[in-house]
Amino acid sequence: MITLGIDPGTLFTGFGLIEKSGNALRAIDFGVIATNPKEAMPKRLKQIYDELAQRIEQYRPSKLSLETAFFGKNAQSALKLGQVRGAVMILAMNYGLAISEYAPREVKKAITGNGNAAKEQVAFMVRKMLSLNDEKKRADAFDALALALCDAFFLPQSIPSEIARAPSKAKDWKSFLEANPHLIASK
Amino acid sequence: MITLGIDPGTLFTGFGLIEKSGNALRAIDFGVIATNPKEAMPKRLKQIYDELAQRIEQYRPSKLSLETAFFGKNAQSALKLGQVRGAVMILAMNYGLAISEYAPREVKKAITGNGNAAKEQVAFMVRKMLSLNDEKKRADAFDALALALCDAFFLPQSIPSEIARAPSKAKDWKSFLEANPHLIASK
Repeated sequence: MITLGIDPGTLFTGFGLIEKSGNALRAIDFGVIATNPKEAMPKRLKQIYDELAQRIEQYRPSKLSLETAFFGKNAQSALKLGQVRGAVMILAMNYGLAISEYAPREVKKAITGNGNAAKEQVAFMVRKMLSLNDEKKRADAFDALALALCDAFFLPQSIPSEIARAPSKAKDWKSFLEANPHLIASK
Repeated sequence: MITLGIDPGTLFTGFGLIEKSGNALRAIDFGVIATNPKEAMPKRLKQIYDELAQRIEQYRPSKLSLETAFFGKNAQSALKLGQVRGAVMILAMNYGLAISEYAPREVKKAITGNGNAAKEQVAFMVRKMLSLNDEKKRADAFDALALALCDAFFLPQSIPSEIARAPSKAKDWKSFLEANPHLIASK
């Protein structure tokens, strides 16, 4: 089974493909797609889309593992990040990949045991697990590998997007549950 | 020439196709794509993508006219809107449509002569121009037609996305101009 992890960003989008055969883990391909901030946004999104599509056609992953969005206070950054996420989601849907989303904290916890681990620590553990000791890449590439690892191996009961989406608001607990039947665990 | 106007939104995405033959204007198709907020975002984006793609295949527009994003203070809304915009931009790129962006104020000014016009006034003028007097649709559909009208007929020197993008920041005017050569008008 092959999983494609993606850490989306307008300037740098990290990607990492992990294959699991039996109990063996292997990084097939990983890196960063850098776009030129002087180019128009549609062209930059298309570059990200096409470079990822090329890897999907080459390696045929069955799943896409995506970092959930960080809700900062800057609406303009959120809009830009949203645009990349939208392009990646359409990519997954156009190629029939199942999407799972993980919060940065979940990924850190799964990979290092500590939800507050530093980026370097995540990269260190990812390198160790995949025997990539001398690989030098931007942190975004290791984040993407961590997402792919997370999805494929550490969280077998991974949360599909249908459930991971933000719950609807409600006045009280009863109406909250009625409005969000997808959040109720089956017995 | 056929232009597809799009007013993007997670819940309701307005679309409107306008054909110009000689001096005659005609609304070919227009309406609203409504998505279910209980569905996962990738599925909702794919629905918007597919319903628009179907119209592109049917009517073969050469241009796509998009409303620029409103930068509100709510980062979560901006992220959601960004996702729809990203899906629409990838759609345009995948079908080779040229994208132009217009701010709501520009559209209102072009259609009604008043940059602060109410939504109803825009819809009234669009109905009048296109002889759609008894058509009842959500305002998003008329906004999309207004965008298509704007692009095709009222703003011949429409601003392509390459130029419309946000300028880079700079310390002073000289370095601003150096960083943003695309904003300098040719003489």
